[in-house]
Order: sequence, then structure tokens, then C-alpha cells
Amino acid sequence: MQTIVVLGAGKSSYYLINYLSKRAVELNYNLIIADAVIANLKETSNIQTIQTDLGNVKNLKEMVNKAHIVVSLLPPFLHIKVAELCLELNKHFLTASYVSPEIQALAADAKRKGLIFLMECGLDPGLDHMSAMKIFDGLSKKGAIIKSFRSYCGGLIAPQSDDNPWGYKITWNPRNVVNAGKGTAQYLEGNEVRYVPYHQLFKRVTNLEFKDYGQYEAYPNRDSLSYIKIYGLKDVDTFIRGTIRKQGFCKAWDCLLQLGLTDDTVKISSEPKLTIADFVKKFLPENVSYESYLKLDDSNVKQKLSWLGLGSNENLNFTNESTPTELLQNIIEKRWKLNPGDKDLVLMQHLIEYQEDGQNRKIISSLEIEGQSQTETAMAKTVGLPLAMATLLILQNKIEAKGVIIPTIEEIYNPILKELQNHGILFREYTYS
Amino acid sequence: MQTIVVLGAGKSSYYLINYLSKRAVELNYNLIIADAVIANLKETSNIQTIQTDLGNVKNLKEMVNKAHIVVSLLPPFLHIKVAELCLELNKHFLTASYVSPEIQALAADAKRKGLIFLMECGLDPGLDHMSAMKIFDGLSKKGAIIKSFRSYCGGLIAPQSDDNPWGYKITWNPRNVVNAGKGTAQYLEGNEVRYVPYHQLFKRVTNLEFKDYGQYEAYPNRDSLSYIKIYGLKDVDTFIRGTIRKQGFCKAWDCLLQLGLTDDTVKISSEPKLTIADFVKKFLPENVSYESYLKLDDSNVKQKLSWLGLGSNENLNFTNESTPTELLQNIIEKRWKLNPGDKDLVLMQHLIEYQEDGQNRKIISSLEIEGQSQTETAMAKTVGLPLAMATLLILQNKIEAKGVIIPTIEEIYNPILKELQNHGILFREYTYS
Repeated sequence: MQTIVVLGAGKSSYYLINYLSKRAVELNYNLIIADAVIANLKETSNIQTIQTDLGNVKNLKEMVNKAHIVVSLLPPFLHIKVAELCLELNKHFLTASYVSPEIQALAADAKRKGLIFLMECGLDPGLDHMSAMKIFDGLSKKGAIIKSFRSYCGGLIAPQSDDNPWGYKITWNPRNVVNAGKGTAQYLEGNEVRYVPYHQLFKRVTNLEFKDYGQYEAYPNRDSLSYIKIYGLKDVDTFIRGTIRKQGFCKAWDCLLQLGLTDDTVKISSEPKLTIADFVKKFLPENVSYESYLKLDDSNVKQKLSWLGLGSNENLNFTNESTPTELLQNIIEKRWKLNPGDKDLVLMQHLIEYQEDGQNRKIISSLEIEGQSQTETAMAKTVGLPLAMATLLILQNKIEAKGVIIPTIEEIYNPILKELQNHGILFREYTYS
Repeated sequence: MQTIVVLGAGKSSYYLINYLSKRAVELNYNLIIADAVIANLKETSNIQTIQTDLGNVKNLKEMVNKAHIVVSLLPPFLHIKVAELCLELNKHFLTASYVSPEIQALAADAKRKGLIFLMECGLDPGLDHMSAMKIFDGLSKKGAIIKSFRSYCGGLIAPQSDDNPWGYKITWNPRNVVNAGKGTAQYLEGNEVRYVPYHQLFKRVTNLEFKDYGQYEAYPNRDSLSYIKIYGLKDVDTFIRGTIRKQGFCKAWDCLLQLGLTDDTVKISSEPKLTIADFVKKFLPENVSYESYLKLDDSNVKQKLSWLGLGSNENLNFTNESTPTELLQNIIEKRWKLNPGDKDLVLMQHLIEYQEDGQNRKIISSLEIEGQSQTETAMAKTVGLPLAMATLLILQNKIEAKGVIIPTIEEIYNPILKELQNHGILFREYTYS
């Protein structure tokens, strides 16, 4: 009897664990869920929960040792350790995280041992690769030439739960929300590699339209370039991956960035008490308000910043080790909290331009998924189900590829995209010519 | 017979070597000048030149071993190695570079061995410490309370040699010119620690007036805060150190920064040939000019950018390893070159506010030094002479302090500031009440 070990039972685990629990019983697999805290999970003869600190390598090794296949929802920095243990102990390994250079370095050894290290198999990265590759492979079979690919994804909030001026609440790691976009974005546009420094990123937005949800905007992700080769797109002159926000979000977020509130390189020095207004003042010249420093003339931006309390005398949770990033996280976590009745929203859109029979054509493929509740989020569903489904494919020996792989291959994306439709995860595709 | 070893005979060595050569003969010291290239230096019975690669630790050790005292003009990153060798071989050590944490860590050992590691003993840091501390100590003796200190310094170009719209030419390490201001600036203003992220730095300028040279501007240095304690200024509510540029420079330089041209974190990917216009295009959206992207409405800024050739089809010295910083350095090195007849200009200004007998008073102390030629620069003079003079003070046992020190103490700044006057280096001081 084969054993699946799931490492991590946090926010994004609900659908993954739910799906695997049901299928483990049907298909007669053992399922072990390990984490420091595991809430509300019934054990059965097939299903076991183990409470353990996975930051400790000894515990991690013990868990990996119990598995035939390891699915990790741990923070990305822990994945190299898990991968090394899987290599040592001959286990398959799955995550929704990006392939790091350290994990890529294990590829040859994993392949030699016949192991599958399937990475980037969640929502973004994950579903984006699968849905895009399905279109690309279909077009290539028809002899079409793909000229342009723009792909955007975002974890947002459903309209009925959208009760703040930013149109945003936190449905994943809040630190990542504050750090979003750091580094220099690189993409291809008009056959030219383009570079966008962080301090320009939120000024370089593009507008997007979703059928049931209306107007959004997106800013470029840090690295689009490496996927051109991975997707095998030899003829594209434009290739951009980006992140979706509600229209108007980026202009206001850029104000926080411009002030310096997203800086993670300095420690704020202050008295033991620090209000939000005091924190903001530290980024301004003497006797200048943030409104006048930023030359704010857009009432929507003013409203967003004021709603965050930039001028308020509310105390921050402050230590002398705090960086601006941490203090800003402090502010937004409180205000962008997903409430029990809230429904989140996952949006994804690919815009593909191609040539077929000498004609220029265009496909727009969109995914629009609403969550059910604070726990049953669209985010947890779209990250967790692809991972869960891939786990079963591997256990059932349905994946030939070995080594470090991502779900850009037909034997992975076809069955997963098909099965996802049974769970309401479906791309709507429009072709224009 | 005691031996002075000077490591490095580059741009800033002219006055240092000249001064030490003369005094070595008079005072009967040996002087050894070591570098990979040593041009135009006559050897005598006292003076020896040694051609050697100082990047090699074996050579470095050999040179240090010959010395009683080592003066280093090498790039700052090499100083920790030189300092370690000086500690091992019991030699005094002098530089014009900042005290790094690594060098600070040697302080106790150096002190125990009775060695002097005198750092920050050039122009800035160096002369700024000396001239400010002389004023502070004088005021303190009179019972005055220092409330505010603003201190600015810059290596610029004399008006008669100022033949480009930027009012700037390169008189020191060109890489430092391109990297200037990176990091988050921290200073004290209005009794509040203020933080200025790099992308705001060149917008946060202050205007300065020099008697013989007119209008300049300055932006804050990265770290002002640590000097508050070093200078012993317990009562200041404002403490800023900054860098001087010709008026209008910062607004135009900010455009280069905003575009992303000063970025050193990415490698530019391109065809083997790259023109300046192609380089700039990579930081812009498709079919948008840099003028319209930056919303340029200031003809002075337009003129500066156009003079740099941002739109030109001149080829850059390009490899696929080049970062934006390197390519921008490429552009400015060619255009901001000091020509043989050019005279540079060193400006320094302290603005000090204090209370004396219940009265608010103010001192403005300024230094304005013109160079003689492309080699006999004001920069080489103001960096080299303090170092050279301090070397002799140490050899003559006139400095009691031991360990890692900077020239904030009377026994160092008094004789040096006095002797500098004989070389035309003199602060003009005005008191206002």
C-alpha cells in the first residue's frame, strides 16, 4: 500500500487534503498529513495526521521516510531540504513552488534514480503553464506560428466581498504581498528584451477585461524570459507574464513604494511606540505631508491611502528590528483581512497572437473562479487540486517523464485540465481572426 | 631609518607622493611607492619605486613587510587584507577610506599592539571630520550647545573648465559616480530619523551657495546617523551629511535612475552590437520615447540627457555580461572626461546651528579649492595631503591614540589643518547671530 505524505496543512491545503483524503480511501492509499498545527481533520484507517515541527530536519527526514510520494506546501525556502531528502530516500516530490537553481541542480540525479520532482504545479505557476501549453500544442499541431503571449494571474476578492477602496484582500502569504514585484522585471516586447526597475513597475500596468468581473490591471512579473524556451516558443516577439490587481490598485500601491514603505533593507529607529503617521513621517522632509510630497491629485488614490490610515495615530506593532516592509505588512494585514463570510476570486488570462494560413489570429483564454468561504478559497482550490491530481497520476504510473519537471507536458496537463473541469475549474476561450 | 610604504600610485596619489618625497629627504625617511604602473617618478637614495601587482596577497605582504608605516590608496575592498597584514607584521596603517565593520573588528588587537590604524583621513571622509570637529570643540569649550549640523562635499569642475550642460566631470572612481547614492539614506532632521530610498534621493536636494562659485545643490549621503555619536553631538536635532553637485544635476541624473540605467542587478541581453538608443529603448514600453515616458518638460533636463546621447546610434562597448550600470559608466566616462587643461574644483560646506548664552547662532564654514591641471587636481590634493601629513605625525610619535581611529581628535586635526593652510587649503568661516 503506497503512502502519500503531505507536508504543511496551512491556508492553501484545504482542497488538496480534501481531495486526497477522498481518493486515498477509494484507491487504497495511505495519506499522512504532517504539520505543527492540524485543525479539523478526521483520521481514518487510511488517513493519519502527525503533529511535528517541520523546520527541524530530523522530523522532516522521518516524514519523508514514511512516504512513497511527498507533496510539500511548506514555505519555498524549505523545499531544497525536502528535495535532497527525497533524492536520498528515493521518493517522488511535488510542490507548487518555482524551480530554484538549487533544485534544478538535482535534476540529473533525480532522473537517474527514476524519480519525479514535479515543481510549479499549483495555480501560478501551475495552471498557467498547463492551460497555455494545451493551447500552444494545439496550435502547433495545426501548423500555426505563435507570435505573442501575454499571461496574467491574480488572487483577488469577489465583488460581493469587495468592501474596501483597494479591491484587495490577502488570500496568500502577506509577506509576498508587501514584497511583490521586487527586483527588475524582464520581458520580451516588440522583439526587444525590456527591463523595468522596481520603482517603475507599478506605473507600467496594462488593462485587462474579464467577462463576469470587468476591469482589472496587471504589472509584469520579475522573470518572464526563461519561460520562452521552456514553452518552446521560437517565434514570439512578445512574451510577458504578469500579476493582476483591481483597476487603480497599482497607482496607489506605487505611492507606498515611492515613499519607501516597502523597503526591506533598513531597520526603523524610533521610540518604543510608533504610530502609522509617525512611521510615514520618517519618509518625508520636515513639515511636508505625504499628500503634498507625492503631489496627489487623484481622489481615488487619496481615498485608498487615507483608508490605510497613513495619517492615523494608531500604534504599530513595533520593535527596533522592524523594517519598513514589516511595518507595512502590519498595516495591511489588519485591513485586508479575509473575513469569515468573504469569497475570494482567482483570475487568469492568456492573450495569444498567432499566424495561421497567413492570417493573424488571436485567442483570449480566461479563468474566473470564486471561492466559497474564508477556508474554501478559490486560491486554495486552484493551487491544491492540480497538485493533488498530479500526485495520483504519479502513483498510478501515468507520467513517463523523470527528473525535475514542470507541468508543460501533455501527459500531465491533459488529464489534470480535464479532471479540473469536474471541479468547476474551466478556461473560457475566444478566438478572434 | 624608518620606511613609509605607499600602496597605489593612481589618480589621487600625485600630491601625497610629492609631499612625502620632499619630506622623506628632509627628515631622512625611506619612501617606497608600489603599484602595477608607476609613471614619472624619480628614484633617489631615499625613494624607491616597486612595480608589483598588489591584488596578489604575497606581493602585498612583501610590501607591508618593508614598512614601518603603510599608506594605502588601493580600492577600499583591499583594505581589510592590508590591515590584517599590518596587524600581523606590526605596522601602522593609513587610508582615506571608510572604517568598514571588518576593519573595526581589528580595533582591540591593533590597540593592544600599540598600532595606529588611521582611517577616513582624506577629503570626505577626512577633512570634513577635521574641520567640523575643530569648530565643535571650540564651541563646546565656550559652553555652546550644537543643535544642527549639515555638511556637504563634492568633487566638481572649475567654472573655466565647465564646458558641458551637467557641470560635472569625473575626478575620481567613475564606478562610484554611477553607483552614487545607492541604498537608503538615513539622517536626522527635526529630531526625527528620516529615510530616503534611492529612487527618491535625487529629488530630495537642498540648495547651497558658495562665495566664489555660486549655486550648487546636495543630496543626502547613505549613512549620516553613525557620526552623531562619533562627533559627540548629544543635543543635535538635525544631522545631515551630503554630496554636492552643480545646480540642476540631480533632476537630470534622477531621470537616468528612474529609467533604470543605474541598475546593477541585471545583465543586459542583446545582439553583439548595442547603440545608446537601443540600450535606452530596453527600459521603455514599445514605441514610447524616453522624453515622453519621463514626461520631460524642463528644457535644461532635456538638454542634459540629449547631450549624453540617449537617443544616439553610437555603439556601446558591450558584452552579454554588461549591467546597465556598466553601460552607463561607458557613456559618462567618455563625456565627462577631465581634459589635460581642465581644472577641477573641490567644495565643502558645514552649516552649524548652536545656542550660546541663550542665543541661537549659526556658522557657515566653506572650503573652495581649484585644481591646477588634469594631474594636479584639487581632489588629489585634498585627499592626499591630509594622509601624507598624518603619516609624518605618526612617524614623529605625535599621535597618542592607538587602535582604529579617525581624525576627529585634536592631536590629529590641529597640526594637519594648520599645515594645510600653507598649501592653500583653508576654510572660510562666517558666524551669524
